[in-house]
Amino acid sequence: MSTHKDPTISIIALGGRGEIGDNMLVIEDDENIIVLDSGIMFPEDDQYGIDLVMPDISYLVSNKDKVRAILISHGHEDHIGAIPYVLRDLNVPIYGTRLTLGLIQLKLKEFNLSSTTSLIEVSPGEKVQIATFNVEFIHMNHSIPDSIAMVIRTKAGTVLYTGDYKIDHTPIDGKPADLQRLGQVGAEGVLALLGDSTNAEREGTTLSESVVSNTIEETFKLVNSRIIISTFSSNIHRVQQVFQAANKTGRKVAITGRSMINVITLASQLGYLDIPDGIMIDIRQIHSLPPQKVVLLMTGSQGEPMAALTRISRGDHRQIEILPGDTVVLSSMPIPGNERSIGQTINQLYRLGAEVLYDGMIDAHASGHACQEEMKTMLNLIKPRFLIPVHGEYRHLHHHARLGRQVGIPEENIFIVDNGVRLNLTKDRCWIAGSVPSGDILIDGLGVGDVGNIVLRDRKMLSENGIVIVSLTIERKTAKVLAGPSILSRGFVYIKESKELIEEAEGLAREALRELEVKGVTDWATIKKVVIDSIDNYLYQKTKRNPVILPIIMEI
Amino acid sequence: MSTHKDPTISIIALGGRGEIGDNMLVIEDDENIIVLDSGIMFPEDDQYGIDLVMPDISYLVSNKDKVRAILISHGHEDHIGAIPYVLRDLNVPIYGTRLTLGLIQLKLKEFNLSSTTSLIEVSPGEKVQIATFNVEFIHMNHSIPDSIAMVIRTKAGTVLYTGDYKIDHTPIDGKPADLQRLGQVGAEGVLALLGDSTNAEREGTTLSESVVSNTIEETFKLVNSRIIISTFSSNIHRVQQVFQAANKTGRKVAITGRSMINVITLASQLGYLDIPDGIMIDIRQIHSLPPQKVVLLMTGSQGEPMAALTRISRGDHRQIEILPGDTVVLSSMPIPGNERSIGQTINQLYRLGAEVLYDGMIDAHASGHACQEEMKTMLNLIKPRFLIPVHGEYRHLHHHARLGRQVGIPEENIFIVDNGVRLNLTKDRCWIAGSVPSGDILIDGLGVGDVGNIVLRDRKMLSENGIVIVSLTIERKTAKVLAGPSILSRGFVYIKESKELIEEAEGLAREALRELEVKGVTDWATIKKVVIDSIDNYLYQKTKRNPVILPIIMEI
Repeated sequence: MSTHKDPTISIIALGGRGEIGDNMLVIEDDENIIVLDSGIMFPEDDQYGIDLVMPDISYLVSNKDKVRAILISHGHEDHIGAIPYVLRDLNVPIYGTRLTLGLIQLKLKEFNLSSTTSLIEVSPGEKVQIATFNVEFIHMNHSIPDSIAMVIRTKAGTVLYTGDYKIDHTPIDGKPADLQRLGQVGAEGVLALLGDSTNAEREGTTLSESVVSNTIEETFKLVNSRIIISTFSSNIHRVQQVFQAANKTGRKVAITGRSMINVITLASQLGYLDIPDGIMIDIRQIHSLPPQKVVLLMTGSQGEPMAALTRISRGDHRQIEILPGDTVVLSSMPIPGNERSIGQTINQLYRLGAEVLYDGMIDAHASGHACQEEMKTMLNLIKPRFLIPVHGEYRHLHHHARLGRQVGIPEENIFIVDNGVRLNLTKDRCWIAGSVPSGDILIDGLGVGDVGNIVLRDRKMLSENGIVIVSLTIERKTAKVLAGPSILSRGFVYIKESKELIEEAEGLAREALRELEVKGVTDWATIKKVVIDSIDNYLYQKTKRNPVILPIIMEI
Repeated sequence: MSTHKDPTISIIALGGRGEIGDNMLVIEDDENIIVLDSGIMFPEDDQYGIDLVMPDISYLVSNKDKVRAILISHGHEDHIGAIPYVLRDLNVPIYGTRLTLGLIQLKLKEFNLSSTTSLIEVSPGEKVQIATFNVEFIHMNHSIPDSIAMVIRTKAGTVLYTGDYKIDHTPIDGKPADLQRLGQVGAEGVLALLGDSTNAEREGTTLSESVVSNTIEETFKLVNSRIIISTFSSNIHRVQQVFQAANKTGRKVAITGRSMINVITLASQLGYLDIPDGIMIDIRQIHSLPPQKVVLLMTGSQGEPMAALTRISRGDHRQIEILPGDTVVLSSMPIPGNERSIGQTINQLYRLGAEVLYDGMIDAHASGHACQEEMKTMLNLIKPRFLIPVHGEYRHLHHHARLGRQVGIPEENIFIVDNGVRLNLTKDRCWIAGSVPSGDILIDGLGVGDVGNIVLRDRKMLSENGIVIVSLTIERKTAKVLAGPSILSRGFVYIKESKELIEEAEGLAREALRELEVKGVTDWATIKKVVIDSIDNYLYQKTKRNPVILPIIMEI
């Protein structure tokens, strides 16, 4: 049994928008903190006008002196996107593999932070000592190369953090996840597993990228037209597959879109992408080749409004338009929430005469995350004393926990906890020990965290029924109305067509003000309230809408 | 070959929100028009603040004298929801089966239209003559009872409209779709098939409701806890299955939610629902029974914000709260666009300690629409000369057309057309003959069609960045500023925390106005423009946000 003298560590998940620990994990002992990943999320529908959502890092800021490093598992936005914002408050070194650091570097340049940040490159197999923590990196498979798991040796025991992963036995770069090392680490004894739960609802195993390679190659061979293929720019394996398939089938590849070009340039400079000689052509050359010799590679598989494929589907891309007979391949699966915009892109592509291959129609996509059988493989390789499911919504964690019980981890050793909950661990105990501040910090333009609930609530109300502004000028002393009340609206009704409604409302406000004048009321608060009350009900009766009503009173 | 004397009819699809002909179809000859269905859609995400979307019926209104009847295929909102709005302009009789009319009646009462509307009940097998059209009704399967296809015999030939359908050989009411009659009608010769395309992307056949029955019964038997089961209130077969399964497994059923209670009451009054004696209990009695004897039936399977299950998951239902161990069954599949809200409901239910069964976890749901094999069965029963896919987005129509080609309909005899396109048909020809007004009419509160693009655009802009109002009072003749400029905002920044920003902007506006005064400029348009320009750039520089800037100028 443990005693009160046993060394204790804490693990805290932080992360935005209802996913648990996906953006950031914190590991802490009495003297030191290390941070695993620093990512952002894209906003929910009801986070009006918000650009990005990052985790609340106020706990880290108030323990600034303990924070030693940020370690990054892979180069996706939900793991690196918050780095520029975190660095403002915590200028600590960042550890990551080569490609991951390359992608972070792009980001730091954008924010003018490259010269003030230390980036420390690590490789799978390597171990680094960061204060009291010894961290070893293990190669994993994911939808971006150079993804790693981390073996974090602490005073209390070993913590294994999987990062985002899948187990691909036949990946296209020839480097399957390092199961042997995972097995060795497991055999040495692992106190806690922080494991990716994203696909915990999906049975079986994730498709191998080589199946996807074959499908893409077959498609390039069989289709006798131009191919437009769309995926995430960061999916460098997929990009590699496209180049390989084009090479084997005698097609040339043109790429379009800033992020696609940036990532391809970086990945090939760093040696993660092997572009066969002479296969790339400029987008302006595509018309000089017969259609069956052309592949166009771009983003937009999620129906993102500004991505190349989406713009092409709307007919507003500068250089490319759909030709009847084009075959469009969406090499991705819908991210929940994107179904309608993807559907609209597909509709538009069909309207323009393209053939479209999407979803399950061909095996043109494999998830980047482990399904249930791979998760059980991970659990049995590691055999952790405690299982802490992370990465995913609550329901994914729930299913990951179920898998843990299936492979024999006692229920009381499995901890599904929310962002901000502090889990304490000693060599043989794990318990909830309070919580730290956590939640969504909203980024809107340059503002980080300055859009709060009041502003969001206002945006929601404005979006639903618009705003009605009643303005008047009064004499300072007497509160006599000198001008107005006059009404203006935005997003409520089209004023030109609702002249009568507005005039009637102005009349009601005028009458109410006259009564106040008679009574000699001069205080603003009352005047404002009376103005609102005078038209609020009337507008609702006439329209069954509840606009924001804003009285503006000027004094002379 | 046809001659110019051959009788001609027109078919026009009308419908909202990018689905083609789902809400309304128009069949017209030289003297008469009949309307098939009158439904509404729920708004898209970018239709801010809109309650419902209905088809533009201005073509019908301008041909009012020709419109003889509205015929309804089944009682779902996307086929009956626009009736109260259509009746304002077109008071014609409405034909439908008993349950369909019952549901329409509920709606008419709400709108105070029952006494002025003629409802004419029809039955499968029956034929009615409506002016020059003879219409026969054929029993079909769908996710609501009493659904019918229509055989419309016109001067040009027979048109078969499937309505929404599937072919269930073992439905729980013992009435499979009337394939024999479809075969006879097909053998007599069908000019055009207007066929449901909803599931044209799905291979195979739709699950039978009896499979679902078995699953529900098994679940009720195996689960040793309270069952909460959620489906659409209109899915009366599913409701029937729940009562049956409860009866067989010794459970009692309590229902909650206004629409669920209304529809169950109506369906059992009309004989569409057989509620075993003594099986229903009041929601207040549930605690007097052991949990394994209780079933709670309610809506909310789509995460609809106000539905019972959603409220329970948020912990704000007046009468029901989740007890640890409860099993929740979502007896439905996500409608595209609802994935995130359904996911959030599931997360919340797990957090509260419930077990949740959803999506493919058990066969607790069957679609109401035909999959590819059923669609081919329909095509081969009817063997229409012309195929006009309807009901679905463009991509669904595209796949329906592909199935048509597979069964041998020549490509030139298949017409994928948009809402509003007029298809003319004679006994052996079909061609596009122009178009009529069509599109989304937006319903917001009491307003039908009064929210147009300008109001929507304003709502979108307001929702993204809020509004900044600059108000000032000027002297009429001289344009001298008497009060202001003062700035107020909503949904932009939280003003209390952004005092400096606002004061600086006021300063800039004041300066710009002073310059105008010096120059003696007095016209409003210039003053407004100068006010906007003076702060627009500044606010963007400081925040990278683009609020709506609204100058308000009062004159004395």
